Amino acid sequence: MTARISSLTALFAIFKIDALLLCDDASIFYLTGYPAHESWLLVTTQTAHFITDSRYYLEAQEGLKATGIEVIDSGVLPVALTLSLAKRWKIRALGLDERRVNAALVRRLRTDKPASLSLKAADGIVDGLRMVKDVFELDKIKAAIKINLQLYKYLSARIRDSRREIDYLQDLEGFVRRKKVAFSFPPIIASGPNAAMPHARVTGRKLSTGEALLVDVGVEKDGYKSDLTRMFFLGKMSLRFRQVFSHVQEAQLKAIARIKPGVAAKDIDSAARLYLKEKSLDQYFGHSLGHGVGIDVHEMPSISQRSNIILKEGMVFTVEPGVYIPGQFGVRLEEMVLVTKTGCEVLSVDRN
Amino acid sequence: MTARISSLTALFAIFKIDALLLCDDASIFYLTGYPAHESWLLVTTQTAHFITDSRYYLEAQEGLKATGIEVIDSGVLPVALTLSLAKRWKIRALGLDERRVNAALVRRLRTDKPASLSLKAADGIVDGLRMVKDVFELDKIKAAIKINLQLYKYLSARIRDSRREIDYLQDLEGFVRRKKVAFSFPPIIASGPNAAMPHARVTGRKLSTGEALLVDVGVEKDGYKSDLTRMFFLGKMSLRFRQVFSHVQEAQLKAIARIKPGVAAKDIDSAARLYLKEKSLDQYFGHSLGHGVGIDVHEMPSISQRSNIILKEGMVFTVEPGVYIPGQFGVRLEEMVLVTKTGCEVLSVDRN
Repeated sequence: MTARISSLTALFAIFKIDALLLCDDASIFYLTGYPAHESWLLVTTQTAHFITDSRYYLEAQEGLKATGIEVIDSGVLPVALTLSLAKRWKIRALGLDERRVNAALVRRLRTDKPASLSLKAADGIVDGLRMVKDVFELDKIKAAIKINLQLYKYLSARIRDSRREIDYLQDLEGFVRRKKVAFSFPPIIASGPNAAMPHARVTGRKLSTGEALLVDVGVEKDGYKSDLTRMFFLGKMSLRFRQVFSHVQEAQLKAIARIKPGVAAKDIDSAARLYLKEKSLDQYFGHSLGHGVGIDVHEMPSISQRSNIILKEGMVFTVEPGVYIPGQFGVRLEEMVLVTKTGCEVLSVDRN
Repeated sequence: MTARISSLTALFAIFKIDALLLCDDASIFYLTGYPAHESWLLVTTQTAHFITDSRYYLEAQEGLKATGIEVIDSGVLPVALTLSLAKRWKIRALGLDERRVNAALVRRLRTDKPASLSLKAADGIVDGLRMVKDVFELDKIKAAIKINLQLYKYLSARIRDSRREIDYLQDLEGFVRRKKVAFSFPPIIASGPNAAMPHARVTGRKLSTGEALLVDVGVEKDGYKSDLTRMFFLGKMSLRFRQVFSHVQEAQLKAIARIKPGVAAKDIDSAARLYLKEKSLDQYFGHSLGHGVGIDVHEMPSISQRSNIILKEGMVFTVEPGVYIPGQFGVRLEEMVLVTKTGCEVLSVDRN
């Protein structure tokens, strides 16, 4: 069994379960170190079973050899196999993260299970563990950020009049290919008024002098991701743009200054939001301030008004205030921070 | 409203629903032509509402302009908004494809909904429509296949002793980048015994003389995908390999010969499987014979023993028998076929 699986089973009592069925790649990768696809992991208090089919069986046996996890070829009947394992291990309360399994699976389990087995929602049980990064994870996240910063340095030298958004995308694609990494998500490259769409798609629009280019790109390396937004300027920006830009910068600094263990995530969001409200810009800031980053590019903790998370040492998340003025321009600045014992470290500072 | 949405609402009576909530990108793209992300589509008998948030609102308004679909910014409360729309349109039975929504969403809807609204499983309602391709879709699938075949022609000229699997992957990556397309899925490139794993990962293993290279790669273009497997040989293959290879070829031909409207999908699978059984190879053929391809690289119809689909004109799917002998070698051959009025057309024949 892995140390992370032991940390997980220690939570079973709190969730009132004696086993957990995981069906999502990210949770299984976190717990086993094995990059699974289309497979399930059943964790009991004593054992763990990797449920797969003939397509992945041999590879999984090899990949999980060191973990002591049993690999089982369920054929096309993973539900039946899960229920027979539940019987074998005398499971009475099987947990499921309902946000990460489809409703049809829950329906099938409910229909086929014996009355002695109850199904329980265990939403966020693995996500809770994943929120606090260990040193192995931090190393991987830092490695992804390092390449992300190199990518931005490379891109900054290529900003020129009349180059199109898709030309910049090709620059980025070539870069990640040469570095043998992947994008964390399809990059956002938005010129001038296109940046007023927080999730703009890349178009053939040309960047002109007097305009800004918003680039939001992340890098995935060894299963861990980064996510950073930078803005590039061609020529002199308008007064209004410069005012908004400096307010967004200040909002970001206000938020970062509040980060430390014990503070509520929603208060970090508020620090930026209230500052933008003072400047009458809060109505143009429609999304939350940030999100955790690790195996997934969006994971816990959410840094938003609706978050009930209290910050802990070891959490890694983005701080990304934005102001989007329809038809005119958009400004977003996004850094990644690590909560430390006494405050936070901005991981995405280029130290070279 | 789009013609495809009209075809969908015509099915509402069969599913005993008067509205359908869709949460998956593929269904929404199929129905609207708009490549949505993280957004929902609520279809009633009279109207359709695209439920999104501030990140996508402006872009969605632009992208859906021609469809007459109302775009709504739900903020962070899509469930509340859906329920208020359900009230506004007097919806009594709301359908959900339970395989394509997470169980937590169903739980939330169930908790918050009024007693007068019932939730109904409408699994496969959109998939059923998507199974039969229209001419616009066929054109896009054929365009993807065309590039896939060019890719294989390019690769075949690069097969050489001592090149590694990852070198071939780089060939493919460069090719798709130059063609400005994407992979349908992470390519499988398996040399020698690695091909005995049906979903092998790409490794640094070198291809040696006397070995085969199995390559399974698909191309995505304009939202539609292809999926083809080819085998390349370096030098002379062993007698055993050649025997197995010709049996897999024959199994594929037997299956293709049976394809026509009105035949059960499982009988197509049986045609290949029974032939391999005659050759005592069926125990090495662990997966199903094929799957539909279109917007998703795996979609309906499933061509398997468990399928209850009857073939119809316009269906597009793979025919991919395989024999995997652990530690020795693997053979898989994968073509894409279109069911025609009287039989089928193999779409993946290189006509150049």
